Order: sequence, then C-alpha cells, then structure tokens
Amino acid sequence: MDPKDLIARLRTGLPADAVLTDPDVTGSYANDMANFCAAGTPAVVVLPRTVEEVQHVMRTAAQLRVPVVPQGARTGVSGAANATDGCIVLSLVKMDRILEINPVDRLAVVEPGVINAVLSRAVNEHGLYYPPDPSSWEMCTIGGNIGTAAGGLCCVKYGVTAEYVLGLDVVLADGRLLTTGRRTAKGVAGYDLTRLFVGSEGSLGIVVRATLALRPSPPQQLALVAEFASVAAAGRAVCEIMARGHAPSLLELMDRTSIRAVNDMAQMGLPETTEVLLLAAFDTPDPSADLAAVGALCEEAGATQVVPAEGAAESDLLLQARRLAFTALERIKPAMLIDDVCVPRSRLAAMLEGTTAIAGKYGLTIGVCAHAGDGNTHPLVCFDPADADEERRARESFDEIMALGLALGGTITGEHGVGVLKKEWLARELGPVGLELQRGIKDVFDPLGILNPGKLF
Amino acid sequence: MDPKDLIARLRTGLPADAVLTDPDVTGSYANDMANFCAAGTPAVVVLPRTVEEVQHVMRTAAQLRVPVVPQGARTGVSGAANATDGCIVLSLVKMDRILEINPVDRLAVVEPGVINAVLSRAVNEHGLYYPPDPSSWEMCTIGGNIGTAAGGLCCVKYGVTAEYVLGLDVVLADGRLLTTGRRTAKGVAGYDLTRLFVGSEGSLGIVVRATLALRPSPPQQLALVAEFASVAAAGRAVCEIMARGHAPSLLELMDRTSIRAVNDMAQMGLPETTEVLLLAAFDTPDPSADLAAVGALCEEAGATQVVPAEGAAESDLLLQARRLAFTALERIKPAMLIDDVCVPRSRLAAMLEGTTAIAGKYGLTIGVCAHAGDGNTHPLVCFDPADADEERRARESFDEIMALGLALGGTITGEHGVGVLKKEWLARELGPVGLELQRGIKDVFDPLGILNPGKLF
Repeated sequence: MDPKDLIARLRTGLPADAVLTDPDVTGSYANDMANFCAAGTPAVVVLPRTVEEVQHVMRTAAQLRVPVVPQGARTGVSGAANATDGCIVLSLVKMDRILEINPVDRLAVVEPGVINAVLSRAVNEHGLYYPPDPSSWEMCTIGGNIGTAAGGLCCVKYGVTAEYVLGLDVVLADGRLLTTGRRTAKGVAGYDLTRLFVGSEGSLGIVVRATLALRPSPPQQLALVAEFASVAAAGRAVCEIMARGHAPSLLELMDRTSIRAVNDMAQMGLPETTEVLLLAAFDTPDPSADLAAVGALCEEAGATQVVPAEGAAESDLLLQARRLAFTALERIKPAMLIDDVCVPRSRLAAMLEGTTAIAGKYGLTIGVCAHAGDGNTHPLVCFDPADADEERRARESFDEIMALGLALGGTITGEHGVGVLKKEWLARELGPVGLELQRGIKDVFDPLGILNPGKLF
Repeated sequence: MDPKDLIARLRTGLPADAVLTDPDVTGSYANDMANFCAAGTPAVVVLPRTVEEVQHVMRTAAQLRVPVVPQGARTGVSGAANATDGCIVLSLVKMDRILEINPVDRLAVVEPGVINAVLSRAVNEHGLYYPPDPSSWEMCTIGGNIGTAAGGLCCVKYGVTAEYVLGLDVVLADGRLLTTGRRTAKGVAGYDLTRLFVGSEGSLGIVVRATLALRPSPPQQLALVAEFASVAAAGRAVCEIMARGHAPSLLELMDRTSIRAVNDMAQMGLPETTEVLLLAAFDTPDPSADLAAVGALCEEAGATQVVPAEGAAESDLLLQARRLAFTALERIKPAMLIDDVCVPRSRLAAMLEGTTAIAGKYGLTIGVCAHAGDGNTHPLVCFDPADADEERRARESFDEIMALGLALGGTITGEHGVGVLKKEWLARELGPVGLELQRGIKDVFDPLGILNPGKLF
C-alpha cells in the first residue's frame, strides 16, 4: 500500500486540517502513557469532526486494508492506543460536543472526544452526576473511558464506566453505522452489544456517540483518614466496613512508600510513621454518623489513629493527596510500571502482603495505592531503565504480581485494560476456550483485522 | 435422528430419573406462560443435577444435531422456553443449590435452578440484598432471570438482573465448559462475555453456575399512594420526581382497569373513582421525609389525593395490590397478551395516552400497569381467543403498542425478552446491521444452531 494513495483518498472525505502527515506531528501520536509497550510509526493521523468523516476513514481503511488505531487523549496506561507501523491514527478528540443533558431521563448524549471532567461539570449544573472518575479525569475522554471501561475512586459505591453506557453509535470496520442499546432505563432486545463495545479497546468499532446514564448529584462527601501499623490490620478494617453494609463513596489505601512520595512532592503533611493509610468518605445524608461508625470499625481492626476531616475542604485535601500518588511515585525512579490487579476484597491483605514480599525478593521500590473497597490494587514498580538488571527485575516483579492476583481469585486488570502490556496475561486469565470465543467475536466485527491490531490478543 | 437412539445415548451419562420420556409428562414441559407462541413436542426432557451431566447432554445433542431448549421454571411470557419438535428440553430446576454467600465480597454463587425468592431470603439472613424481583419471584429461577435479564419493581433504584451477574460458568453448544467474568468488584480483562449471556435466552450456552453481586440490606421501605385524574398528570409527577433527584425504591403506576380488576379479585379497597394510581416507596434512612417531598410534587402535578401508608404493613399491602395486577387482569377475559414496552420516562404519559387510544380504536380492554419510574409499561390486552375477530384485534393492538413504543424512542421489551413472541419486532428494533452482527455472534457460540433455535431471531 502506497501511503500517498492512502492520504490522497483520506483527503477526499476530510477537511485539509483533519489530515496530519508531517512525521514530527504524527510521531507525537504514537504512544499512550504506558511503559514497555512497543509503538510503531503511523502513516497518517486523522482528526474527524463528524460521523460521516469517521465512516469515510473506515471505508478507506477497509478498501486499502490499512490498520486503524483509535485514540482519545492517550492517557491510557496499557498501550491500547499505541500506533502500529503504517497505521491510520484515528483521533476522536475533535468530536467533543455534549449533544444533550436530560434531567428527566437522567442521561447525556455525547461525542467521544468530550473530556470526562468537562462532562462531569456540565451535568453537575443540572443537579446530575456522572460518577466514573479515573485519575486522568481532567484530561481523558469519554470515548477512551468507554474503550477501556475505566474506573476511578467512585467505583466502590457507583461502579465503573460500563454501568453508565446505555447506548452507542459505532462506525464499524467497513464504515457502516451501528446503533446499539437505548435511551430507556431498561431494555432487553437482543444481545447486549453496547456492553460488548465497552472495554473492547477500539478493536470492534469506532464509538462516535454515546448515551450515558446519570445520577442525581449526591451530597458533598466527608472523609476520614485512619492509620494502621500493618496491611493486615487495614485489610481487616476494609472487610469489616464492607461486611457491615456500609456504602462509602470512596475507600482508598496508600502504603508508606506512596505516603512519603506524596509528602516529598507536595508537602501534604501525611503521617510518615505509619505503614498504611486508609481513606474513607461518605456522601450520605448524615456522613458524620457513617464516618463515626467506620472510624470505630477501624479502631477495632487495630487502627493506631483515626482522624475525621474537619469539613469539606479538608476532605478534598485528603482526596487530592490520594490522587497525587501516581505522579509522586513516578518521581522516585526514571520509569514506573503500573499494575492494576483486582482481587476479591476479602483477599486484599493477602495481595498487599504478597506484593511487599515480591518487592523484597527483587530488591525494588514498589509503592502501592489501592481502591481498597473494590480490592483493586495499583502496585507501582519504580525502576531505572538504564539499569538493565533493574529493568529485568521490574518486569519480573510486575508479572509475579499478576500471577499472585490470579492465584488469589482476582483479575490481571481491574480498570486499566489489556492493550499491549498484558495481552499474554489475558490469554492466561481467559483460558483457551474463552480466548477462542473472544477471537470469534473479534472476527465477526472486524473480519479484515484492521481495527487496532495487536492489542488485547 | 431416531429418538430411541437419542434417549439411549442420553441415559449413558444421566441417572435414570433424570430422563423423562413419557409423552404425558414431557408434554407438560412444552410451554412457558406466553400466549400466541407456537410450541412443539419435545423428544425427551432431561433434569441434570451436575455440570458434567449438562455437558453430557450438550455433547450428545451436538453429535446428533438435536435442538436443545433450556428451561427454568417456565414463568417467562415471551415463549423463549417453548419446546420445538423433537428437541431435548434441558430443565435446570434440579440444579438448585446455593453454593456460597459471602458478606465481605458481597456475592453469592448459585446454581441456575435456585428460586429467586429462596436466594433473596437466604442472603437476607446475612444482612444482604439481591434486588431483582420479577413478579414471579416466588417461582422463577435465577437461571431463567439471567436468560431473560429479568427486571422487577426494584429496578428504578437498583437496576435489572444484568447488573448483578459478575461471572458465569456456561456449558457451550459442544459441551465444553466456559468460565466468564470474575469474583471481584471490578475487572476489564477482554470482552464482556458475562453480559453477552445475560438476556441471551439460552441461545448461546447453558448457564450452570452464577456469581451474583449482592448489596447491603436497605431499611424497610415506606410507601405512599397518589391519585390522579389523568395519565398526563401522573406522567408529570413521575418526571418531576425523577428530575428533582429522588431515588424511590419503587415508583409504580396502575390504571383504572387494573385498579378495578385488583379490587374485584382481592377486595383491596383501592379507590375506583380515579384514573391512575401512582405508588412510590423509599427505603432511605428517613423515608417519611422523602415521601413528604414526593407527595408535594404529586400534588403540584395535579394529584387529587395523596395518602402515605401508615407503617410497613400498609406499605406492603399497597405493593401487594400492584403485584396482583397481572393475575387480576387475566380474569377479565379468557386470554391476555402481555406487552412490555419501555420508553424514556419523559415519554411515559405519551405512551399511556397512546395506549388508551389504541384500546379505543380496537374496542378492547387494555389494562396498564407500569414501572413508571423506568418508563416500562405493561399494557395487558384482554381478549377471548374463541372470538376470531377479537383475537385479531388483540394481536393488532399488541403490535401497534410496540410500534408506538419505538416511535417514542423506546424498546419493544424492557424486561420480558423476545422469545418467539417478539422476534419479528426485534428485527425492526435492531435494524439490519445490528441483526447481522447479533446473528454473527450466535454463529460463534452455536455454529450448529442447536441452542434454542427459532427464538430471538
């Protein structure tokens, strides 16, 4: 395939400024934020603004058998948005309109390039709430969130992106337009194609419009922080909180490495003498009462100190400290591998203790923060890629952490997805029967294999 | 295919009492509760008790190319569980063990034949709640609920069955065992096969085990009843309640025909001079306050009377009246067609007014009860099948109600499924592209077409 022919054909259905070919520019679209994930050189980057333009791109790609890599804000951490050699990078960021916000039907209709925080603030003005809040929410797009089935801090109470996608418009591999799902609260007409696209990492079609469920805005949340001398004690507290029927709006954990990294970067004044911090918040009508009950459970489980935030501002500060952990840990070493193992929450302490043991075995700094209420841990392996031995140890520890997660009845990815980073591990988690069926579905939607090839499988 | 050969082969892997061949007995397995749905004569009914026995049945069926119709309690109302001629009816009712209830991980692991109410009561003893509550909850099975993605009264606050299925064990068409999903709160490893099976009406595989998410038991709910002189006013009230951010645990509607039918059958003393009753309930920490707010909104919308229940017992009685509506309306005429159209809740009043007009046009009694908060209406077309003209009018009105639902941006089925009853309408709702992809998925899972053939498509 001649790239000039490809570009010429793309230009017949796209405005001049929507087709980027300067290698210095297109090269900047090669990667998402993952480490250790190969990325190729795109032949061209296209920035369509309409459904018809996306259809034109896909028709052209299908005719010429050119791979297409769909992209949002490229904030992903699994390489799912990485370019392959000679591909069309299909960036959806210019399709960024909020088309409808409907308080009666509690839904929004959006284009895929809308930024998560922009949508969140827009619906908030109508008294509504779009819960999914990945760490990158100020940058990441709704289309990217759908592609990865993104989570966030909210999930322990409100669930992940998948639970908020009612219906989709999708441009298929051959350029045809598919509408899935509904605008209604319920619906069971046929197989749930909507849900199939959520988390499919651009491998089944290009989402060009989404109908999203919204909730009423909850009351302002209030938080507390509890200090523990061991992960075992913190794990017990998490189990008790959930077993007693509490519904925290977040239940987060930071280990000593994360705490120190955050203090070093942002002088947050978090207590450094403790092994583990647990952050709990409630957005219920009477959060103080809920916090008091949860604080008591933490103390029973062995917390050395429990400090409720004094009001909303201090709660927000605690939340901000947790949100800074990734960035802070990234400063420890030149590179970082971000794991995303989710285990049944009853196995959280075992997962954390095992991770500590793995860090010791490999002589590495592995900071851990976790969506503790979900059992979703993010072990962050800090290393220097210039040190070949340390890099090898980092990779091996990363794999050993996933193996531990599977052994504890968990999954290799709670919310970050598979992409390039974990595709060998996906095969292990799914097993041969599951993998065969997943490939069969891929073939139904993309018989030519042009949609984000080399990802997932 | 020789039925004797089929039966002999089935017996090699099943206990003697698990293979039923007496035509008087097998004939009683031919139908679910739907009207107007063709049912054939099964060659044999099997009642396996283990996964291995189900695998044996499917291997045998695949070898001999015999269709298999999976069944739960046959309480469905779309014919999805109806036998086809010469089929194996695969009843899962003997696989009825609750294998695990885990309060920390908030999940249960069950076999498909567990009855919904049995599970609900069992988890309740652990302070947990399994929300999906179809009308038939005292009889229907979890496997059947998964097959149809069943809903219920709870859905306006707690969602449908699909939202509570974390993972499945499925025996595939060729007898292999597939495990999907997870035991964790979150997970995004590959395409969501779990969700694909939910609502697939036994057409993709045989669910033999399910991991179900549970919630903490909510407080006892309290209800009110509001009377309206028009569906338009009741529709306005529903819109206001939802737009103002209320989260009722149920929000149900009964029209005058339903009210009278329930009074006639059960002397419930519901007010007969009103056009519409709206039932709202809250299971919040302070339900009286929520009910007062919602009562005020009902009055603003034009309610002629608002009566809060005096305590839990009276609330239960109101709920019971609503649950009796189907049975009560069935007594009006020898037969009844049950529609299940769900529209965006903002279009509820239009849907109800349109249904009244259709009843008038065809000279029929059509009672309506509705999960009003979800926009999910159940127009119940009462008719006498001995009267050919009335039967024709009933069918035509039934179709016209679905057409109206689609025109209002709704779906032909909110929670009852497609089965035989609505398969022509499914094609209309999905359109050719969607239908082609759905068929493609079916072929991946069931290349021989032996799983519940003639349903859905």
